[in-house]
Amino acid sequence: MKLLHDRIIQDGLAFDDGTLKVDSFINHQMDPILMKSIAVEFVRRFANLPINKIITIEASGIAPAIMLGYLLELPVVFVKKKTPKTMEKMYLSSVYSFTKDRTYDVCVSEEYLSKDDNVLFIDDFLANGNAALGVKSLIDQAGATLSGMGFIIEKSFQEGHQRLVDLGINVQSLARVGSLAGGKVQFID
Amino acid sequence: MKLLHDRIIQDGLAFDDGTLKVDSFINHQMDPILMKSIAVEFVRRFANLPINKIITIEASGIAPAIMLGYLLELPVVFVKKKTPKTMEKMYLSSVYSFTKDRTYDVCVSEEYLSKDDNVLFIDDFLANGNAALGVKSLIDQAGATLSGMGFIIEKSFQEGHQRLVDLGINVQSLARVGSLAGGKVQFID
Repeated sequence: MKLLHDRIIQDGLAFDDGTLKVDSFINHQMDPILMKSIAVEFVRRFANLPINKIITIEASGIAPAIMLGYLLELPVVFVKKKTPKTMEKMYLSSVYSFTKDRTYDVCVSEEYLSKDDNVLFIDDFLANGNAALGVKSLIDQAGATLSGMGFIIEKSFQEGHQRLVDLGINVQSLARVGSLAGGKVQFID
Repeated sequence: MKLLHDRIIQDGLAFDDGTLKVDSFINHQMDPILMKSIAVEFVRRFANLPINKIITIEASGIAPAIMLGYLLELPVVFVKKKTPKTMEKMYLSSVYSFTKDRTYDVCVSEEYLSKDDNVLFIDDFLANGNAALGVKSLIDQAGATLSGMGFIIEKSFQEGHQRLVDLGINVQSLARVGSLAGGKVQFID
């Protein structure tokens, strides 16, 4: 996706430790026009799948997911990273975050994910794939069908992509970053 | 906003303890078409203000804020409830949550809020106003101008609305709930 590649080159900050900072346009300050273009590209990538619901994870996945839900006229469910007091029946899974070096719970109400759902998961980043696998566990617990996973940016030098593909998941990342060496972003396709 | 009132009556769950559960269409599962209509109403309510940026707070504020940012073609900044390791210079404020009976920090990077900004704050709920006042503190620390605050639902039987109005803030709530007594939602206008 050229528009996204160009924007990452222009406004992204790459660091040798594998960090790619895009918080001026994706995950702290957000560019809604870019988010709409990203959603359009997801429509194209997942065309013809019988999706009835978008699922994402708070907080940075919500913007692209709601834009995609708007275009497809589908409900969007966001998985929560904390267990709300008011939620009674829910699916729960644990996710280990390397960035934060801690394990956190992800959960979704049983009311909003069921065996009748055919879902598309959307998130901002794919790195080691732990968060995506945590959400996959929720989808599996609900007996729902996972049609695909779409990410804005993938760190292709980490193992997430392969872990998901090995499970037979249709993974679409709009920008695949092969290297951040020397503070320079290199895309792999 | 009749569409929103009708939806709250249809799908909201009211409890005598003052809880209004709208997580089937606003803050867990989200209806993107409704979010677009909500954003259009915010455009109408805040027409002619010299806003250059939308500010919201994770996670439930992001959907209406990004839709509004999309319509107005303005950047959207979401205030974080945790202090990210990668954020160096930020404005910070503490918020006490009655619902969760704990104090949490809210923060925004100094890069995305400055004295040149004229911001509109958007969130899903206004109750006691503590979260909104926490964000106002961040806006004040940055020397930015606050043009108004827009909420999808206001619990008008709590003190938030009056606390914000007393500070001279232009507060617009699209559904003002006067009472939840007997599990019945009553609007005040």
